[in-house]
Amino acid sequence: MLFKDITILDENLEVREHMYVGTKGDRITYVGTGAPCDAQKAAGEVDTDRVIDGKGKLLMSGFYNAHAHSPMTLLRGYGENLPLQEWLNDRIFPFEDQLSGPAVYAGTLLAMAESLRYGIVSTSDMYYFPDDMAAAISDSGAKNNFSRSVTCFDDRDLKDLPAGREMVHAFETYNGAADGRIKVDMSLHAEYTNPDKIVRQLAELTSSLGANMHVHVSETKSEHEECKARHEGRTPVKYLDDCGLFATPTTAAHCVWIEGEDYDILKERGVTVAVNPISNLKLASGVCNVPALFEKGINVAIGTDSVSSNNSLNYIEEMKVFAIASKMMYHAPEAVSPVETLRAATIGGAKAQGRADCGVLKEGYKADLVMIDIDTPWMYPVHNLVTNLVYSASGSDVVMTVVDGRVLYEDGEYATIDIEKTKAAVTEETNKILARL
Amino acid sequence: MLFKDITILDENLEVREHMYVGTKGDRITYVGTGAPCDAQKAAGEVDTDRVIDGKGKLLMSGFYNAHAHSPMTLLRGYGENLPLQEWLNDRIFPFEDQLSGPAVYAGTLLAMAESLRYGIVSTSDMYYFPDDMAAAISDSGAKNNFSRSVTCFDDRDLKDLPAGREMVHAFETYNGAADGRIKVDMSLHAEYTNPDKIVRQLAELTSSLGANMHVHVSETKSEHEECKARHEGRTPVKYLDDCGLFATPTTAAHCVWIEGEDYDILKERGVTVAVNPISNLKLASGVCNVPALFEKGINVAIGTDSVSSNNSLNYIEEMKVFAIASKMMYHAPEAVSPVETLRAATIGGAKAQGRADCGVLKEGYKADLVMIDIDTPWMYPVHNLVTNLVYSASGSDVVMTVVDGRVLYEDGEYATIDIEKTKAAVTEETNKILARL
Repeated sequence: MLFKDITILDENLEVREHMYVGTKGDRITYVGTGAPCDAQKAAGEVDTDRVIDGKGKLLMSGFYNAHAHSPMTLLRGYGENLPLQEWLNDRIFPFEDQLSGPAVYAGTLLAMAESLRYGIVSTSDMYYFPDDMAAAISDSGAKNNFSRSVTCFDDRDLKDLPAGREMVHAFETYNGAADGRIKVDMSLHAEYTNPDKIVRQLAELTSSLGANMHVHVSETKSEHEECKARHEGRTPVKYLDDCGLFATPTTAAHCVWIEGEDYDILKERGVTVAVNPISNLKLASGVCNVPALFEKGINVAIGTDSVSSNNSLNYIEEMKVFAIASKMMYHAPEAVSPVETLRAATIGGAKAQGRADCGVLKEGYKADLVMIDIDTPWMYPVHNLVTNLVYSASGSDVVMTVVDGRVLYEDGEYATIDIEKTKAAVTEETNKILARL
Repeated sequence: MLFKDITILDENLEVREHMYVGTKGDRITYVGTGAPCDAQKAAGEVDTDRVIDGKGKLLMSGFYNAHAHSPMTLLRGYGENLPLQEWLNDRIFPFEDQLSGPAVYAGTLLAMAESLRYGIVSTSDMYYFPDDMAAAISDSGAKNNFSRSVTCFDDRDLKDLPAGREMVHAFETYNGAADGRIKVDMSLHAEYTNPDKIVRQLAELTSSLGANMHVHVSETKSEHEECKARHEGRTPVKYLDDCGLFATPTTAAHCVWIEGEDYDILKERGVTVAVNPISNLKLASGVCNVPALFEKGINVAIGTDSVSSNNSLNYIEEMKVFAIASKMMYHAPEAVSPVETLRAATIGGAKAQGRADCGVLKEGYKADLVMIDIDTPWMYPVHNLVTNLVYSASGSDVVMTVVDGRVLYEDGEYATIDIEKTKAAVTEETNKILARL
């Protein structure tokens, strides 16, 4: 593919106009101010089977959704406006108890469709039913780091838990599948949903497998304080670190209530914080102190969390709320700039997923790209295009999403997903579950 | 127009499927479960010149933007990421000093285009250059309550201020213009930008004219506290009430820092609070206590504020943040329901504008309508359509905006606005201003 005369956000997220970007296979192979020369074309350095006119468009790295539970599309708008515990115990958990493989497949595929529509090229997912998730992700063409998260409320060993067996099975079966698009992470659901023994066994298993870790940390104040009460004053970050959980590359989702020494531990262990601003507002959990994370030099990424607490995967909207919620909460209108936001949305997420060759529009990197319409009324005037992109653009301004050089979404059409069939399947599977409740 | 077999939000904002809605001239003349009968058509009760298939669509009242500064589109993304005073003094005020009539016309017209695209049928505006604003609003076909706001930093009388003369001129010239689409309000910019004499003179003038009042109140903590220091401990609400400002129907924008007795005064005087959630987050002002306003029975409406502090007029996004910011800030995930949010967005705003026959999809009301695509991936499954609309829909899902029975926006096309010319004019006028700075 060759994008012709297009505005780009380059490797430093700086705006460059009238650029040419070429791909070959799954890689970006050319970025220049003029068209690739005939010699380059002849040498097959750029696929020129398709030339895309870039007038009025912006090309940049696709977005990396650093924390999600994709199959929960099935619960979008279910059991709303309830206090947290009532919402979970009376609505979410009973519904999830009735999930089936086909339901998870349909829900995941719909999430992938919505993700691609909004420019998300890769998602870090935490859920159950790994076989069905793997099938849907593979079929969609998107990238995904998925994990089968562990919760345990008794005294069994990890190896005796279905979750433990399923996660090892998923790792052995799917890690690196779909040409590397799929990676499998290990996942501890959270400190408060597991006994000490499981946390330590899982930390050990994860290290021995050389896998990545994905874990919920300090999402709510009560969870944070109860951990301290349970573990001699240690915060979830301190406790999990003591258990060895951060020995492998880790994504810690939420981190709304982390404090003091927690920041040092996260920085030292190279943990990524996946911030979920909309979900944290909607569930009244609080606002992650993103300015403090940046100041400490911690890797920050952005997640949507599940659509049952969001309730969409509108990534540009998520970026906007990521920036403005922090400004308000920490009394700093100048904190969390548009460029810092875009960095978290792209390379921050790619880094969290252990995808060193992703998240940057640069020769040699994977061709994970989004093309955005910048000729809309709300993108005028252009005092600063990056500012307009984060604060003024609509999620639906994404007109093309490319993963590993393959166009998966373009102008309302999906290359890999039968969207009408998927919507119908989600409705059908949801109704089956509701009928059983 | 006849909308056929469409899902609607009725006068109680309840979902009704397979409905028929007819308009004649500027009114909704038919709402029923079947098509209007031949006798009704023959009697000319419904215009049947155009029949619109409602499959996959939702029809509801249009949105009322209760607080904006439309011409500030010209400053979208200008001087971002600065502390508030630096932003205002070094960037916004010098730019505004260079504004011209043609610039304000172009900026207002672009704001109307963006508003219509996002389903806003009417806006409460506060700015300068009333003649140019009136021209742009009139040309756009949208509704607007605009005001020429007063600021004064010396000891002149209201009648000797250009602002005073211009506001009376605007009221006499434009109030009720464009078939009633345009209304002119009086406006005190704020307590902190005017001496006591001006506040009292303006209150008196407004009462004598029988006009509405539009005023900024307690947007920032410092403004709120400084008022108390200046005025014997009285809050802005208490002080302005003592000056008689609330004797006429008033929209008080922001009200982030109101406290105690303020709620009683606002309720007693029938003041509408226009909440501007995104601007308040972005400028780090705080979060209005919407649950407390609802509990008190105060009329609540939703505003976008200017795009220089938002930076878009994406109204569905604004509704979402309106609900979720309150949930977080006041530790109440169950507060500010989707239906309460939609009520504020429609009838709450129409009431604030003194438009008693607007803001409701009901026979006899003005045909100010939006049609929204509800067949998108993010609107599935449908556990609750109203919840999906507020939390899951994208602002760009609006496919048609109707004002007084006239289709002003439909599927990317404007009936009244040459959008390419308008974008070019905004760019040109912006560049002229920048060249003078």
